[in-house]
Amino acid sequence: MRITTEAIRAVEEPLDANHARDLDHASDLAARTGVDAEAVISEICRFSVAAPSWAVGTGGTRFGRFPGVGEPRTTEEKLDDVAALHALTGANRTVSLHVPWDDPDDPAALRAHADDLGLGFDAMNSNTFQDNPSTTGNGRISYKFGSFSHPDPVVRAHALEHNLAVVELGVALGARAITVWLGDGMNHPGQARFVDQFERVADGLHALHDALPDGWQMYTEHKPYEPTSYASVNPDWGSSLLLAERAGPKAKCLVDLGHHLPGTNIEQVVSRLAMVGRLGGFHFNDSKYGDDDLTVGSINPYQFFLVALELVDIGGGRMPDIGYMIDASHNLKDPLEDLAQATDQIQLAIAQALLVDRSALAASQDACDPALAAEHLQRAYRFDVRPLVAEARRRNGAALDPVSTFRRLGYRDAAVAERGTESVASGL
Amino acid sequence: MRITTEAIRAVEEPLDANHARDLDHASDLAARTGVDAEAVISEICRFSVAAPSWAVGTGGTRFGRFPGVGEPRTTEEKLDDVAALHALTGANRTVSLHVPWDDPDDPAALRAHADDLGLGFDAMNSNTFQDNPSTTGNGRISYKFGSFSHPDPVVRAHALEHNLAVVELGVALGARAITVWLGDGMNHPGQARFVDQFERVADGLHALHDALPDGWQMYTEHKPYEPTSYASVNPDWGSSLLLAERAGPKAKCLVDLGHHLPGTNIEQVVSRLAMVGRLGGFHFNDSKYGDDDLTVGSINPYQFFLVALELVDIGGGRMPDIGYMIDASHNLKDPLEDLAQATDQIQLAIAQALLVDRSALAASQDACDPALAAEHLQRAYRFDVRPLVAEARRRNGAALDPVSTFRRLGYRDAAVAERGTESVASGL
Amino acid sequence: MRITTEAIRAVEEPLDANHARDLDHASDLAARTGVDAEAVISEICRFSVAAPSWAVGTGGTRFGRFPGVGEPRTTEEKLDDVAALHALTGANRTVSLHVPWDDPDDPAALRAHADDLGLGFDAMNSNTFQDNPSTTGNGRISYKFGSFSHPDPVVRAHALEHNLAVVELGVALGARAITVWLGDGMNHPGQARFVDQFERVADGLHALHDALPDGWQMYTEHKPYEPTSYASVNPDWGSSLLLAERAGPKAKCLVDLGHHLPGTNIEQVVSRLAMVGRLGGFHFNDSKYGDDDLTVGSINPYQFFLVALELVDIGGGRMPDIGYMIDASHNLKDPLEDLAQATDQIQLAIAQALLVDRSALAASQDACDPALAAEHLQRAYRFDVRPLVAEARRRNGAALDPVSTFRRLGYRDAAVAERGTESVASGL
Amino acid sequence: MRITTEAIRAVEEPLDANHARDLDHASDLAARTGVDAEAVISEICRFSVAAPSWAVGTGGTRFGRFPGVGEPRTTEEKLDDVAALHALTGANRTVSLHVPWDDPDDPAALRAHADDLGLGFDAMNSNTFQDNPSTTGNGRISYKFGSFSHPDPVVRAHALEHNLAVVELGVALGARAITVWLGDGMNHPGQARFVDQFERVADGLHALHDALPDGWQMYTEHKPYEPTSYASVNPDWGSSLLLAERAGPKAKCLVDLGHHLPGTNIEQVVSRLAMVGRLGGFHFNDSKYGDDDLTVGSINPYQFFLVALELVDIGGGRMPDIGYMIDASHNLKDPLEDLAQATDQIQLAIAQALLVDRSALAASQDACDPALAAEHLQRAYRFDVRPLVAEARRRNGAALDPVSTFRRLGYRDAAVAERGTESVASGL
Repeated sequence: MRITTEAIRAVEEPLDANHARDLDHASDLAARTGVDAEAVISEICRFSVAAPSWAVGTGGTRFGRFPGVGEPRTTEEKLDDVAALHALTGANRTVSLHVPWDDPDDPAALRAHADDLGLGFDAMNSNTFQDNPSTTGNGRISYKFGSFSHPDPVVRAHALEHNLAVVELGVALGARAITVWLGDGMNHPGQARFVDQFERVADGLHALHDALPDGWQMYTEHKPYEPTSYASVNPDWGSSLLLAERAGPKAKCLVDLGHHLPGTNIEQVVSRLAMVGRLGGFHFNDSKYGDDDLTVGSINPYQFFLVALELVDIGGGRMPDIGYMIDASHNLKDPLEDLAQATDQIQLAIAQALLVDRSALAASQDACDPALAAEHLQRAYRFDVRPLVAEARRRNGAALDPVSTFRRLGYRDAAVAERGTESVASGL
Repeated sequence: MRITTEAIRAVEEPLDANHARDLDHASDLAARTGVDAEAVISEICRFSVAAPSWAVGTGGTRFGRFPGVGEPRTTEEKLDDVAALHALTGANRTVSLHVPWDDPDDPAALRAHADDLGLGFDAMNSNTFQDNPSTTGNGRISYKFGSFSHPDPVVRAHALEHNLAVVELGVALGARAITVWLGDGMNHPGQARFVDQFERVADGLHALHDALPDGWQMYTEHKPYEPTSYASVNPDWGSSLLLAERAGPKAKCLVDLGHHLPGTNIEQVVSRLAMVGRLGGFHFNDSKYGDDDLTVGSINPYQFFLVALELVDIGGGRMPDIGYMIDASHNLKDPLEDLAQATDQIQLAIAQALLVDRSALAASQDACDPALAAEHLQRAYRFDVRPLVAEARRRNGAALDPVSTFRRLGYRDAAVAERGTESVASGL
Repeated sequence: MRITTEAIRAVEEPLDANHARDLDHASDLAARTGVDAEAVISEICRFSVAAPSWAVGTGGTRFGRFPGVGEPRTTEEKLDDVAALHALTGANRTVSLHVPWDDPDDPAALRAHADDLGLGFDAMNSNTFQDNPSTTGNGRISYKFGSFSHPDPVVRAHALEHNLAVVELGVALGARAITVWLGDGMNHPGQARFVDQFERVADGLHALHDALPDGWQMYTEHKPYEPTSYASVNPDWGSSLLLAERAGPKAKCLVDLGHHLPGTNIEQVVSRLAMVGRLGGFHFNDSKYGDDDLTVGSINPYQFFLVALELVDIGGGRMPDIGYMIDASHNLKDPLEDLAQATDQIQLAIAQALLVDRSALAASQDACDPALAAEHLQRAYRFDVRPLVAEARRRNGAALDPVSTFRRLGYRDAAVAERGTESVASGL
Repeated sequence: MRITTEAIRAVEEPLDANHARDLDHASDLAARTGVDAEAVISEICRFSVAAPSWAVGTGGTRFGRFPGVGEPRTTEEKLDDVAALHALTGANRTVSLHVPWDDPDDPAALRAHADDLGLGFDAMNSNTFQDNPSTTGNGRISYKFGSFSHPDPVVRAHALEHNLAVVELGVALGARAITVWLGDGMNHPGQARFVDQFERVADGLHALHDALPDGWQMYTEHKPYEPTSYASVNPDWGSSLLLAERAGPKAKCLVDLGHHLPGTNIEQVVSRLAMVGRLGGFHFNDSKYGDDDLTVGSINPYQFFLVALELVDIGGGRMPDIGYMIDASHNLKDPLEDLAQATDQIQLAIAQALLVDRSALAASQDACDPALAAEHLQRAYRFDVRPLVAEARRRNGAALDPVSTFRRLGYRDAAVAERGTESVASGL
């Protein structure tokens, strides 16, 4: 089934009166703090974050996976799910594919399907952290001991070839970027020389960079561990920056919110990469321990607010034009409900960040007055921005209350009816 | 100077109209989610958290301390500052002393001063992590290698004697509890046997316990490291529980929010201790790395909300009657402003926790529906509870906007005029 | 193929002369520090650690698995591999099964096969962290939202039934213990009440405990996270202890070296559990980040030495009679080589611990002399104990140099010839 | 008192015979693994690590400090203590001063005193993380809210002026480098803009860099937190590298082993900085939790071995010519004993690293054989290198067994006799 604005409006009609009242109050309160609520709503309306194709299926851990029901069986059905999500949020206009989990035989047909759904294609993702027939020359090589970093040049050549194929597919689909996240590194001290692994990866990324079409970008994505358990080739933003610099001007760094050691000040990492002109994009999620891939904002929403505030600062008062993607793993929740909650959290954090009086904050900073600075941050963070975000969704033809409305519309039941209870989406 | 309700009202008169409007809206919104705003306000009115005497002065790190101005020179002046804080928040009715940083010659006079200010005495704190003439028999022994855990029984006897003296002082002041936080442990592997240190501390706490007057409680407070850098005798809630059990029925465990290893699920620790009937109290603060002693709620307010929710659950819908103390270090902010911000954060978190529809949450839990559970939590957490908290403060004769009003009232300037710019409060 | 002492001796004959010389020197050096090398060798000879059946196959991460070659296809072949391992180390006399990864149709036949190989059965492991037909009533229930902690009593009943079946199988095989590691907990704040989950698990373990045959033990195994990503029901030693106490006197706590938050002082945890009489056993591995399941001693061998020293102290000069199991994941190394390296590391650490002059160490502790205590620890840790360990292996009919000899004997090639390159062992 | 080679030899004469025997065995064993023991001894003989002047006194934490006895009262006496240390280790030929903790009125006299003791001056250290009259224009400004990063240009000018004065003093003493560790950053979110703080610090370091004399180097030293508790301006190697690049070609990065977030792969950080030509030097220590400043090698000696192996790799088979300093805090041990233990640990780790068969290791790396690589590392790490290190010390005129000999020589008693029990060394 497709979710339409009309269907949403019909379901949500009972909410309209209270929404209007709450919106009035929020606008009034914003005005009192010197902020134009319309400007906030307008920026939320404009913002979009890509949904990853793998995230519309159930995720798992190394200990197992408990599939859901009605999971999409094909990339086309994944797009259908993203379209349903976007209908509810108004803020997921693109989808990010992962090859070969997505490996369309007919890219033109897939693109036409996306067009029909009103969706575009965001950054492509390659996969050299697993062995798949289409990426290993039907098993002639293995990425067990690395891809771009492998001591054997034949393996490295296959890794490059796969990435080039992903770019080619992306061109056919109208995408404009490729994200390169590698599982390369070591599980054991002494397994390799750090500098050898780095140099090989830098060479591979440089070769890929030089083959990128005009207008494309490449994102390097760092992660300290997992699947590696001793050292990753690209473990931190410093390495990611060096790799991007070695690759070339089209290469920028992607920050996945879960790819940091305990205690990392992520908002500072964001600032550093932006400062040197290499902030490329985000994978949004949240975590308590490792790369937990939980709903963004579900563990530390204040930290996420601080990241959003950094972005608004970088963008001079609006969200900068970089890549935004959700990257979460829905092991227990319905994937579409979790994606709707994630998109909501992102919209809420941006709205809060837009409510910060940045010039008053700057004055408190110049005056060495951290207590006053904290007051300014709290004034925005404690603001109930839900009416502003709901209004932005409404104006985009989407839902005031995405999760409830998703349930009322019966999308999952319809999916089960069509796809069955045994379908398993490709992905992790 | 003393801060009066009249003075506050005079300063805050311009805020009244907007406050009334915001309160109306908050009450309306609460009603729509099935919660009686009056009940929330009433519980916030009832709640009080102790201010520690050491926290009205500037704190420092091992690298140094940058004193503020107008710091209290005596315990009496510390009480004056707490009275000013309480006037602004309406929620700091007691003060927690630390001996020998506080060591009144005339306890009766100090108690009379407190009575005059409308303050009571919360848990007493002993100090055997430093060498002070009054705790070491004028330097006859040293706590360099431990106090209750020291291999030398003479040192252990001094530690007990000091704690007994603290209790005696507390009796004179009308306090009812003693918090025992020890610096005991090891900096080096092999420095001591774990079991020997534990047994000695258990014996010491048991002896102290048996000397407690009727109606008194003892709090054991765990901390994984600092000042120890290899092992603490009481590093975790498991050890704290064993020590409390060994001490006796009057002993309960105190949870300092900053005394946990990275990633610890603090709300679960709270639940565990309450489950076995040994949750004694809290030291409120927040941290990003170690025991940073930052303003509670300033780094991860959502985690603090989850702790508050656990407390409300334990208390069956209200805050349980255990010990609540702020324990923060004000290295950069004006101590009173930071304490006002801390108290505000605590009140906000409790209000949010009270807004959770706990029976609806329970239903979602029974139905294995974490997405719905998340909706219930968000519904309360995203609620702008500031008008409810401000109203509770107003009803208690305190300030709608504590920090601004503190500044407008000129308290710090008056303190400087009286105490000078060179005064240094005792404490860390 | 089976590895025999004769075959080992034949391969290692060239090593004998140097071994004799090194052993002489080590014995001489030990004597000079007041330790009888023979006593060390004898204790190493006596010690045995179980090999887990799942660890003779390749392990993986949630991102994928790169199988090895010649992997065991059946539990019988897993036993064959453990027998080969034991032939090389002389210290892996038992195997720890995991049901239903191991689910023999004919337990008596399996036991006979083990007898024939000279192997016994160590602690059995149940599995309610995955859905398997034999544990879920052919899919009637699911453990997606918990097993013993599930809100639905029907699910809990199935979990108990499975555990009882594992005990029954263990009885048939001559095992004497069951390890209960649960994946129960939460991924999301609010998903469940902490206390409800705990109580249900405690009830389930108590029921299982009461059904244990005479002479059996149950091990509760804690882990802070994974597969849970917000809270585990049994996250720390304190919870594990409470659960064991609730279960009954046959229940003890198992310490997996990788199941701790960053910075945890594991040797202290060991001491605490032993102190209260509830230290049940170990899962040996090492880690740098999370539950990396790396070769024990491969990341921080000094920490492992401190754990061994604690054990020797608990055992009054020898390793106490508790459960010892390896629990590692061999994603890149040949599983048997990694298990041989693990066993070697364990033997080395025990030998070093036995070389500590514990009475001199105690004297330095009583004298508050941590510098001298450090000297005592270093004296043992820096000792080259390899000749002592090699000699113990030799006396047990095993190899001086297990990994090299394993390769020279061509075991893996023989396994490939027999089992093929496509076999995939059951397990993670 | 001064410690002479003659006095050492007299005390250690009873050790000589066993030392000779152990050395023979070690040389024989090294030869069997293809390594020339003489080459190892020779490299250890050549190696030197600076002692910091502040580390010959007792250190403390923010909770207090327990002074030792006979502490040096002046910088001259600090040099006397370093000379005693060097007499025992033969490997501490230089001292690293910290201004204004060391602030000689007569630099020429101090230099003459050092010459007389056979000591030179290593990297100078500036201090803008505290307020001292000589660094703040007698209190005209304060570093409470930062030094180079302060919003007020007057404060920044004072910070630069102080650093220039430190360089000037260093020139007078014959030093060739300055280490700039800043306490700058934030305690509170919102306290400052990340990019503003970074830019100001970069500008300050650039100005300092341009004033450096020929032949001088500047070291930027990163640290994630403490004294900051929310964000440091130079928190990680990536920031340190950017700052060094901004400063100029004489600027390199210093790695303090305790200045890393939990789990950081420090050996990889070392490799990265060397790879880009910006590895400047080290502060050696060890830690379990934060910046614990414990004896290097006392918590994870294997990690330290891996760092040493990286250095030997960078140096092409010997330790590269960069800056080496001990930076530890001796809160409980006698400072000189701890420094002797630290120097010993460093010498042991280097010896082990030199014993690695690096070409065999490289072959195992090229062959994707991590099990074999682990064997190569273990072969060196398990080697008892103590005789080789002792022999190197002996050849340098120093002690076979530094700590025992230090005690036998009665140095501390002599210091107490001369300096008293109440002296307190300047420093932390």
